[in-house]
Amino acid sequence: MPHIQTPEGMPGIRGLFAFRPETARPLNELVDVLLRGPNTLTPGERELIATYVSSQNDCYYCQNIHGAVAAAHLNGDEALVLQVKQNFAAADVSPKLKALLGIAGKVQKGGKQVTEADVAAARKEGATDKEIHDTVLIAASFCMFNRYVDGLGTWYPDDAAWYRERGRIVAADGYVAATRQYVPEMAEVSSK
Amino acid sequence: MPHIQTPEGMPGIRGLFAFRPETARPLNELVDVLLRGPNTLTPGERELIATYVSSQNDCYYCQNIHGAVAAAHLNGDEALVLQVKQNFAAADVSPKLKALLGIAGKVQKGGKQVTEADVAAARKEGATDKEIHDTVLIAASFCMFNRYVDGLGTWYPDDAAWYRERGRIVAADGYVAATRQYVPEMAEVSSK
Repeated sequence: MPHIQTPEGMPGIRGLFAFRPETARPLNELVDVLLRGPNTLTPGERELIATYVSSQNDCYYCQNIHGAVAAAHLNGDEALVLQVKQNFAAADVSPKLKALLGIAGKVQKGGKQVTEADVAAARKEGATDKEIHDTVLIAASFCMFNRYVDGLGTWYPDDAAWYRERGRIVAADGYVAATRQYVPEMAEVSSK
Repeated sequence: MPHIQTPEGMPGIRGLFAFRPETARPLNELVDVLLRGPNTLTPGERELIATYVSSQNDCYYCQNIHGAVAAAHLNGDEALVLQVKQNFAAADVSPKLKALLGIAGKVQKGGKQVTEADVAAARKEGATDKEIHDTVLIAASFCMFNRYVDGLGTWYPDDAAWYRERGRIVAADGYVAATRQYVPEMAEVSSK
């Protein structure tokens, strides 16, 4: 049972967005910029970073929804998503993404865990300053989202088909648009 | 030395906002809503929660800048800010804020650490659903900001006067406005 009274029938972060549309707006804008905005890292790569951090934080809802969005971007390759969560060093992803996942894993433990050697290793595989910046901020932001969802005791489906369907919608339409479908008042909030 | 090349002379998160104005906008909007928006918790109380979580995450820049903003909202009471960081249970704050600081401390360790008993204790002191929600999200968001600042190895001043002056500006003008002073292009980004 959630720790606060959120609208019925809305799992995970959805109930929290509906409860507080004022914070839903910048939160959705942040993930849209980070995970879908113009970038030399593909949306699939960025969703894998989000999924990996969420699995390290043991957040069921986030690792499953972002794992589903990642798979939707990666031709439905759910096995790859699982392998990244279990052991990314052995996964079929680029050496650059492996180095960035290493940095993301350090950020999950704490910002000061990231060393110059970690950053040098990513640069050696071709990572740019922007890619390093975005990896750190994606990892840090999921340390927020995971704590938000679990800290308020939200409920979540355990049906893979639910995440798969939602993952396809978010991959196609984006976070702001997908959230506005069930939090229409988010559109009105603090628009400038 | 920062892990990435940020504009010279900009300490802490400021260099990161200038480096990536696209993410600076939702991040600043989020803290403005959470720490300064309409709320039954005062700005001073909310800044104390942000400061406490940042001190638990050992983030020098964030605990000092938000401690300074908190003090600016609390008639310059820097001793109270220090006491909240060191032992909030003995600080001169309301029983409700102590219960909310207890929840924030759990969120800092991980979302699943928050128990029904923690939430019941806060409710017993009069905390509303919105106050519990915002406490969890403030704590979670500072687990992001702290990791962002330290994960990219930003530099920071150790001069208390610098934080005091900046704290007064932010307390007076807000985060979005204060950031636009040195990241003017943030205004143009993804405005809707």
